Amino acid sequence: MNDNVKVIPLGGLGEIGKNMTVIEYKNEIIVIDCGVAFPDEEMYGVDLIIPDVSYLLDNKDKVKGFFITHGHEDHIGALPYILKQINVPVYGTKLALGLIKTKLKEHEMLDVAKLYDVKVSDTVNLEFLSVEFIRNTHSIADSCSLAIHTPVGVILHTGDFKVDYTPIDGLVMDFDRISALGREGVLLLMADSTNVERKGYTISERKIGETLSRIFSKAEGRVIVATFASNIHRMQQIIDASIKYGRKVAFNGRSMENISNVAIELGYLHLPEEYKLDIDELTDHKSEEVTIITTGSQGESMASLARIAFSTHRKIKVEPNDLFIISASPIPGNDKLISRVIDKLLSEGAKVIYKDLEEVHVSGHACQEELKLIHTLVHPKYFMPVHGEYRHLKLHGDLAKSLGMNHEKVFIVKTGQVLELSKQSANISGKVKTGKIFVDGIGVGDVGSVVLRDRKVLAEDGMLTVVFTIERETCTLAAGPDIITRGFVYVKESEELIREVKEISRIEIERCLERGIVEWSVLKTTTRRAIERFLYEKTKRRPSIIPIIMEI
Amino acid sequence: MNDNVKVIPLGGLGEIGKNMTVIEYKNEIIVIDCGVAFPDEEMYGVDLIIPDVSYLLDNKDKVKGFFITHGHEDHIGALPYILKQINVPVYGTKLALGLIKTKLKEHEMLDVAKLYDVKVSDTVNLEFLSVEFIRNTHSIADSCSLAIHTPVGVILHTGDFKVDYTPIDGLVMDFDRISALGREGVLLLMADSTNVERKGYTISERKIGETLSRIFSKAEGRVIVATFASNIHRMQQIIDASIKYGRKVAFNGRSMENISNVAIELGYLHLPEEYKLDIDELTDHKSEEVTIITTGSQGESMASLARIAFSTHRKIKVEPNDLFIISASPIPGNDKLISRVIDKLLSEGAKVIYKDLEEVHVSGHACQEELKLIHTLVHPKYFMPVHGEYRHLKLHGDLAKSLGMNHEKVFIVKTGQVLELSKQSANISGKVKTGKIFVDGIGVGDVGSVVLRDRKVLAEDGMLTVVFTIERETCTLAAGPDIITRGFVYVKESEELIREVKEISRIEIERCLERGIVEWSVLKTTTRRAIERFLYEKTKRRPSIIPIIMEI
Repeated sequence: MNDNVKVIPLGGLGEIGKNMTVIEYKNEIIVIDCGVAFPDEEMYGVDLIIPDVSYLLDNKDKVKGFFITHGHEDHIGALPYILKQINVPVYGTKLALGLIKTKLKEHEMLDVAKLYDVKVSDTVNLEFLSVEFIRNTHSIADSCSLAIHTPVGVILHTGDFKVDYTPIDGLVMDFDRISALGREGVLLLMADSTNVERKGYTISERKIGETLSRIFSKAEGRVIVATFASNIHRMQQIIDASIKYGRKVAFNGRSMENISNVAIELGYLHLPEEYKLDIDELTDHKSEEVTIITTGSQGESMASLARIAFSTHRKIKVEPNDLFIISASPIPGNDKLISRVIDKLLSEGAKVIYKDLEEVHVSGHACQEELKLIHTLVHPKYFMPVHGEYRHLKLHGDLAKSLGMNHEKVFIVKTGQVLELSKQSANISGKVKTGKIFVDGIGVGDVGSVVLRDRKVLAEDGMLTVVFTIERETCTLAAGPDIITRGFVYVKESEELIREVKEISRIEIERCLERGIVEWSVLKTTTRRAIERFLYEKTKRRPSIIPIIMEI
Repeated sequence: MNDNVKVIPLGGLGEIGKNMTVIEYKNEIIVIDCGVAFPDEEMYGVDLIIPDVSYLLDNKDKVKGFFITHGHEDHIGALPYILKQINVPVYGTKLALGLIKTKLKEHEMLDVAKLYDVKVSDTVNLEFLSVEFIRNTHSIADSCSLAIHTPVGVILHTGDFKVDYTPIDGLVMDFDRISALGREGVLLLMADSTNVERKGYTISERKIGETLSRIFSKAEGRVIVATFASNIHRMQQIIDASIKYGRKVAFNGRSMENISNVAIELGYLHLPEEYKLDIDELTDHKSEEVTIITTGSQGESMASLARIAFSTHRKIKVEPNDLFIISASPIPGNDKLISRVIDKLLSEGAKVIYKDLEEVHVSGHACQEELKLIHTLVHPKYFMPVHGEYRHLKLHGDLAKSLGMNHEKVFIVKTGQVLELSKQSANISGKVKTGKIFVDGIGVGDVGSVVLRDRKVLAEDGMLTVVFTIERETCTLAAGPDIITRGFVYVKESEELIREVKEISRIEIERCLERGIVEWSVLKTTTRRAIERFLYEKTKRRPSIIPIIMEI
């Protein structure tokens, strides 16, 4: 144990999602955020990815708590899974905690979790470390940057942020406090790199309100807006436009209902009682008096918007005068899904407005000019870009250097690397175990790379099982071989092919048996290889070949 | 048979790709283009999609030829497959035919195909129909719009196009001929809808040359540019920048080598002999004297760029001073693939310039203002938007209406619908069979929705086989049940689960056998259901359960 502070990202660097950072001093560890990541298309069947927290489990006694910057999934989503393993206090602002509570409830963990409501500008003091919550602006209300005061100096973690001079709740980012910290001296800045590729400034959320108001003024039928359930300010602007044009507002989709309830209850979302509309009462109102705010803005096939489009929603059917607004950007990878939904809505006769046509969405992350502002205010001794793929971190490092920072003071760190800080120095001093834990159904960690590799093969060419029974004593084929395929070819149209596979298998097996080879492994391998060779030549495909032997 | 002309899109409307349009008059059918589409992520294992041409096969005697607008895959890629079924003449300009020939060669069909080289501005005359090739500008050289002169009037099909006033080869779009046609009267306009969502103009290809030249002027090591192999003008600009700064040029990747050979041979690409570099001679030259033009600009894992990045390329390894330029846009769905490659190249120490950072790519399709120009010059009697998803066709229809066209004269047509035209009228008069034929390996059409559904289930939750042997005479279980899984769970960590499945199966089978139930279908269904129920409850997953019975 030494007198240095260690900063260890357990997720979020060199990847999008599962943001989690350890800050450690002597026997004290605090953890910033505890998020999930979403699977990419090669992670067949995986629902969620959570960080490997072996390092926390190995240092269980040191861990003093999770400090949450804001209530987005990639910052809070892993809490139910991780708190099951290490139940320490969770500190956050009111809205973040409200969202965490709905999660913990679903996991039946609300009673055991220790949640502490922190007011913006307050500081949580531990033995050596103290954590100050500083207001910032982001695409969710009540978002904070964190200043971690340590014996070797201040670490400022921006959290996710943008610079919005005209936020919907009127609460601007606390530049004054950030400047003061900069003036007093910040040892390490960790700053959001998401939008570092984009020049200029991010547009203010308020601008969307103006666009919405203009669109609402011309709408003739129902207005149905799909957006991220956590974007309370967006919801508020949709509500404001609705009220202005005499529309009641209904919430649709589980997360939209959950989060709007939490936000209204906690006072973050304002919807007068007389404008509330239950989704079951839609038909009692004229369509020009109805707004629906719904989930599914990414086109996910199981979410509400897609269900409405493809007529599988139980309560909402597309009507010809409907105006749909997709108030979101597709997350990389989701473009095709959302396009499919838009095409279907249009072909059902509805109008659809989306980002390519009107300014109905803005990002919640800082672009280059905003990042320059923060760097200039903070002018830290050391800088570690966070929250981004490698190219984001690299470009963010370059941005810091373009502002005059020495390249030796910029640390492009990988998840798991340990940045060790003293008052006078910073260096990468090691590496801890990290990784992706896959959540599939209710299984956590029982799906890994072998299982995924199998799924990939199955997905691409399907499988072919060859099964046969051997009589042990006589060393003869008692039944089979039978061939069963799934996802390989149309069996009807390929009867000849399957017949040939059967024949090839029979020949291989009998040849082995005649030679007295009864070791299952040899029998299996020989048969599998013969089939593989034959099928690849005939079809240029490589289905998963599964030989099964029964013995009687 | 009547005196009307029928226009029947067999692909390309309400979808991206597999462009193909039938124009029919009496006993004469001509087909515009013959393209492939690429599978989306749910089409597991599918390599290509070609159009269902049942309609052509049913009218084989009428089909007089394919008329190719340009040499992109989505316009020529299906030819080898379709010509095997209906070998009629193929008409196109020199470069398009050159590219078609390399395809036909791979399919060993070059000897049997009937290819006719058409000069730009020439007309191919059939009995009733004649097809005039009109120069346009696009992201491939030698691209044409087609005017089909029919007894009821002229049909103008733009093909894919953009308006480029400063094309690299100096050959601007033939506005004069298009105006003349407009003046004389065009019955039906069919125009490219790809970029109708975009306001303003598409930037000229020449602009990219300026950016490349600036980037090349500062490059210190090798420059490696990934772009679409078919974009000859882009290649030419990369060559020009290379020569300007004393670099020799090597081509890398099969399609890049093929197409550059064809283009150089046909005189579309100019690379002085002394600047040609073989990929095997890379090490003989200083890195600042080398440019490599490579495939893989979409980040496809098997293409050259990804192989270079992930160190699996046999001849090219990343060097610290390398400058990579991704001179392309990600096609929707490929964003993550290309990001992964960029991240890897950066983390290997190379520099990478891509579209988000510099203007290193422009689109080949017309934006709104360019489309307005064409509509204004042509001012057709009827309009059918083509080449786009439904939303593109819809918006393009709206654009035509905004220019004063009556909404009854705009036809938003679906693939397979028949638009029937007389001199005085146009109406949708029917529908022909169309669809997607999947190409998987060398199989064409032997993979369909059932196989894909199976692959989807296998991909998401894997499979579990339960296999057992029954003795017919005694009606008892002779061996098994054995459980084999793939892509379901880590077997080691789930031994208990698998043991339970085995036990449940045994109980179900014996219960059936005791009652004298020996029908395989009942035995299978009973066992499958019991396992499904158990596994869903335990894991919330639904693997494909495959019961196999052997009988001795």
